[in-house]
Amino acid sequence: MTNKSDIEAAEVVAGNGLLHRRLFLATGATLLGGGLSLLTARPAGAAPLEVPPWMKAPGTHMSAYGQPSKYEADVQRVVGGTPNVVGSGVSFTPHHRLHGTITPNSLHFERHHSGVPDIDPKRHQLLIHGAVKRSLTFTVDALLRYPTVTRIQFLECAGNSGSNLAPQPPQAPCGVIHGLMSCSEWTGVPLAILMDEAGVDRSAGWVLAEGADAAAMSRSVPLAKLMDDAIIALYQNGERLRPENGYPLRLFLPGYEGNMSVKWLRRLKVVTAPTMTRDETSHYTDVLLNGKALMLTYPMEVKSIITSPSTGLALRQPGTYEITGLAWSGGGKIARVEVSADGGRSWGDAALAEPVLAKSFTRFRMAWRWSGEPAVLMSRAIDETGAVQPTRASFIAERGERMNYHNNAIQAWSVATGGEVSNVYA
Amino acid sequence: MTNKSDIEAAEVVAGNGLLHRRLFLATGATLLGGGLSLLTARPAGAAPLEVPPWMKAPGTHMSAYGQPSKYEADVQRVVGGTPNVVGSGVSFTPHHRLHGTITPNSLHFERHHSGVPDIDPKRHQLLIHGAVKRSLTFTVDALLRYPTVTRIQFLECAGNSGSNLAPQPPQAPCGVIHGLMSCSEWTGVPLAILMDEAGVDRSAGWVLAEGADAAAMSRSVPLAKLMDDAIIALYQNGERLRPENGYPLRLFLPGYEGNMSVKWLRRLKVVTAPTMTRDETSHYTDVLLNGKALMLTYPMEVKSIITSPSTGLALRQPGTYEITGLAWSGGGKIARVEVSADGGRSWGDAALAEPVLAKSFTRFRMAWRWSGEPAVLMSRAIDETGAVQPTRASFIAERGERMNYHNNAIQAWSVATGGEVSNVYA
Repeated sequence: MTNKSDIEAAEVVAGNGLLHRRLFLATGATLLGGGLSLLTARPAGAAPLEVPPWMKAPGTHMSAYGQPSKYEADVQRVVGGTPNVVGSGVSFTPHHRLHGTITPNSLHFERHHSGVPDIDPKRHQLLIHGAVKRSLTFTVDALLRYPTVTRIQFLECAGNSGSNLAPQPPQAPCGVIHGLMSCSEWTGVPLAILMDEAGVDRSAGWVLAEGADAAAMSRSVPLAKLMDDAIIALYQNGERLRPENGYPLRLFLPGYEGNMSVKWLRRLKVVTAPTMTRDETSHYTDVLLNGKALMLTYPMEVKSIITSPSTGLALRQPGTYEITGLAWSGGGKIARVEVSADGGRSWGDAALAEPVLAKSFTRFRMAWRWSGEPAVLMSRAIDETGAVQPTRASFIAERGERMNYHNNAIQAWSVATGGEVSNVYA
Repeated sequence: MTNKSDIEAAEVVAGNGLLHRRLFLATGATLLGGGLSLLTARPAGAAPLEVPPWMKAPGTHMSAYGQPSKYEADVQRVVGGTPNVVGSGVSFTPHHRLHGTITPNSLHFERHHSGVPDIDPKRHQLLIHGAVKRSLTFTVDALLRYPTVTRIQFLECAGNSGSNLAPQPPQAPCGVIHGLMSCSEWTGVPLAILMDEAGVDRSAGWVLAEGADAAAMSRSVPLAKLMDDAIIALYQNGERLRPENGYPLRLFLPGYEGNMSVKWLRRLKVVTAPTMTRDETSHYTDVLLNGKALMLTYPMEVKSIITSPSTGLALRQPGTYEITGLAWSGGGKIARVEVSADGGRSWGDAALAEPVLAKSFTRFRMAWRWSGEPAVLMSRAIDETGAVQPTRASFIAERGERMNYHNNAIQAWSVATGGEVSNVYA
């Protein structure tokens, strides 16, 4: 079914077989232009379709709260703990097994400093105090009555992709290297409303946010951020937050490093300077190559990752593939994502799935005709402020090759002649 | 904390205390204008915050696949079955307990004609045949390699809200009266690509779609719809479809009555006329008052429902409330939602949460100052084609008061002096 005209009809836009994104931009009849054979269907046989066993008897009944198919039971978070520390560790979103932009709540990444507290929502309270006219406590029931906003936004741990700074590239699935990020539809109460009700002193400048976990995880947040787009998140992807995401409520700071969106929030104290908690001094400071360190680095910078193909998702035969991945920026909307199949020598524009939202995952796609020869796949995101995702070389020139925070360098996947995919530094 | 100036500052836009939507449109410092006291916080006591038991010991570890808090265990689908029929029935999305626009997969509504089949994805195939140049079969693995699109779109059963046509208004939660609708981020393969590969005869006009359940649920679909925005859905809200939503794959027809988005799709046969399956003759035809019936009525029409306040969600005291709900249309984007607190005598414009997407749920919000007097709350949606949601009276003038399909009439909730909310026909 394949022939030369098929291949010529799909306009090549960059080296090693990258095709024009129009495949993903058009709809309906104009989708394929000259007809791009995809080669994965089979001619149907003459015999009628088999009647499979599951059509021969009624299936199971409705259920109160559904679960995945047993055939997808291995699509799980990969759990990594700190040895000998109960409840401290991470779990990774398996992005290489997912598609779209929403992360299911059951697979949202985790990073806990002292495990997941089992909080009774009838007993939990939020205190707003410090430099305010009147200290206030809010029960969860009270907060559920406040005006809300709904937004689809990402959350990324500052430590995400840190293992890719090691001298040798880790050969782990995409969702383990880059799985400390997720994206949800968050619904909650704008902090500005609560701060206004407390009569906040706007000259104070800072707020201490404290969680109700055993670590009392605490961070300093600029008051301006709280008055801008911060919310008390109550719902995630439609339902109430899960325990591991802060039930019954969490702070949510769009675009900021994940750790600052304090889970199980119990206290906001308005203060005049950063409080230098252990969670922003011993952790979450960014060590530079010159021995100095950056502190209070909040927005997660422009970044993109190809989720497929990626390590472990081998190509089985030459042919046309969808290269797809996620792009995001704490600085706003994604303006453009470029893809390279020749290790960065040439680039083509990927298609971005609408709607492209600020501080949210944007799904990008590129059609690629793989010849069967070795190739190196990369993606590079540019956000609406003009910020460009850096190369790994330029990132480590500043930070060095030690595990570090805020690694937003370009990821490269190598495709070998046999179709195997591995993590490379290119 | 409340005073006259607070109330005056919030501009009243319609009868019985409806306030201007600016509360939900502005961000940050300008949010509250003159300061709208919400009255639900409490002055904090002088004593330091209690240290709750869950802060005194480490919490639980990370988990592979998370679940809701035990305190939310009653947020479930309400399951309704047909007596003595195994696997036939419905389950309802509890919209009165949810917020935002995304429906979690575990709570997506169900309507099965013969239960949920337990399908092995290695054995499932999709056949495209009939008026095509070459009949093709697609394995699930093959389809997972095709180019995809991602869109957030609703699915509504044609029978949704049908019980509201009974002579007496059912006193059930909003999610039971209107729970046969849900909204997800769907990712899948455009049908146009597969039809093109099979060499479809575009003059044929119709396609029979058949599911691999024991009912072999079958519907006739206009070929034009398949070539427009239809997909083979493989992922829902990021992860693979759940069994009760068609795993390993389903047809998804944006904006069309839910039943046509055939789950567990195994066959598409291109034909020249509707095939008049039992599922589109004995079911899913709309009986009119004059004894005639409408058949093949596909797009779900413009509609909105206030999800809170609603039956069972009593108001505890006079004060400011968020009136919120969902609006959608099979005809495209929602252009406007109006809310009334006086039974339809006067209306104010609600705030629409961005992004407003075509054939998707749009969350609307309105601020309301409830005086404590009786009130009747209604919402009315208008879509981008200019279609206006009808009153119940005009709907039943055509269809009568029997259980029927495609009921998109305005829902009215009555609020009594004590704050109790009930379903009324107004």
